[in-house]
Amino acid sequence: MRIGIIGMGNVGGALGRRWAAAGHQVVFGLRNPGDANSQDEAKALKAAVAAIPQAVAGAEVVVLAVPWPVALPTVTSLAGELKGKVLLDCTNPLTADLSGLVLGTTTSAGEEVAKAAPGARVVKIFNTTGSPNMAAAPYDGTPLTMLYAGDDAAAKQTAAGLARALGFDPVDAGPLLVARVLEPFGLAWITLAVRQKLGTDFHFQIVRKPAK
Amino acid sequence: MRIGIIGMGNVGGALGRRWAAAGHQVVFGLRNPGDANSQDEAKALKAAVAAIPQAVAGAEVVVLAVPWPVALPTVTSLAGELKGKVLLDCTNPLTADLSGLVLGTTTSAGEEVAKAAPGARVVKIFNTTGSPNMAAAPYDGTPLTMLYAGDDAAAKQTAAGLARALGFDPVDAGPLLVARVLEPFGLAWITLAVRQKLGTDFHFQIVRKPAK
Repeated sequence: MRIGIIGMGNVGGALGRRWAAAGHQVVFGLRNPGDANSQDEAKALKAAVAAIPQAVAGAEVVVLAVPWPVALPTVTSLAGELKGKVLLDCTNPLTADLSGLVLGTTTSAGEEVAKAAPGARVVKIFNTTGSPNMAAAPYDGTPLTMLYAGDDAAAKQTAAGLARALGFDPVDAGPLLVARVLEPFGLAWITLAVRQKLGTDFHFQIVRKPAK
Repeated sequence: MRIGIIGMGNVGGALGRRWAAAGHQVVFGLRNPGDANSQDEAKALKAAVAAIPQAVAGAEVVVLAVPWPVALPTVTSLAGELKGKVLLDCTNPLTADLSGLVLGTTTSAGEEVAKAAPGARVVKIFNTTGSPNMAAAPYDGTPLTMLYAGDDAAAKQTAAGLARALGFDPVDAGPLLVARVLEPFGLAWITLAVRQKLGTDFHFQIVRKPAK
């Protein structure tokens, strides 16, 4: 398959290297395709480089793998070329300090609850999996990941202990602001369980890369 | 520990049953604590029932486990009582049809990319894990979960095939609207990896409940 990857950073590079190794024809679309370093890098990945419009024009599948600040301008400039193409969007609209999304998220239930209960030591927890897993944890002795977030360290310790008591492996995800990601994470579970009909007998578990 | 759980639905009930079984003292705070069915149910869970303010007043830890539409009014009515308490917020501000969050999410990079490229067949994919996993998948022969979303069935099949080629197990999360949950999901990975310093050698994997 002819794959055009816009961007040759961490994501684009990793994808391109492996698709090329698997026999696909990979072309990286770059703003400066004449740059010698980029050409060397692409060569090492067994891929070609081209100007972005050329990389897109020759591709069956286009992969958008650039930082968010340049993503929309890039796509807009190509809109005609992309008509009918399969476009894989790998972007996340991150703030520069990675603390949030610059687009689409504005608050969370956790933060609103904290505002509504001044002085309460709020911890966001038990919202990222379904209630059947609150009964079923652990799975075959393996504690299930339970993400939590809050601004009060002692309250978080209490919450973590109560999760551990139910067969969960509590994982500190940071300040209460992170409820903005934990609530959509909960909805991801619900979406798969209910709308995509996977049922409720699954969990999003942190697994570790095996040692070599 | 004395635990007051506001709400005795799926989540509150599951948590309360197990904490009570583990020896904690659980009181469900209900709007109608005199209701005979609720009293029977609480008894079966080895817990007590009380009016919400009483359940909160006697508790060391308060658990908010009511549907979002009543969560803020409930908390607001209790604000004085909650001062200094550990408050575990288990809510997700879901729309009635479970298609989204009524609070905090308004759009996504995926949807904006689709708007900027009219006619392109956009699939949101390869945004929910780090680039090291795009190189490392599978883990010890186990394909890694790759969530994706889009509105074009054939484009999604192409995307899924390209994920499979890299050692991923592609999982259809629904229409492109679901990019609103996949992008915060991606940020959850980034948050743990970078801000919470877990490093990049982990993945959120769908694991299945073992058969009995």
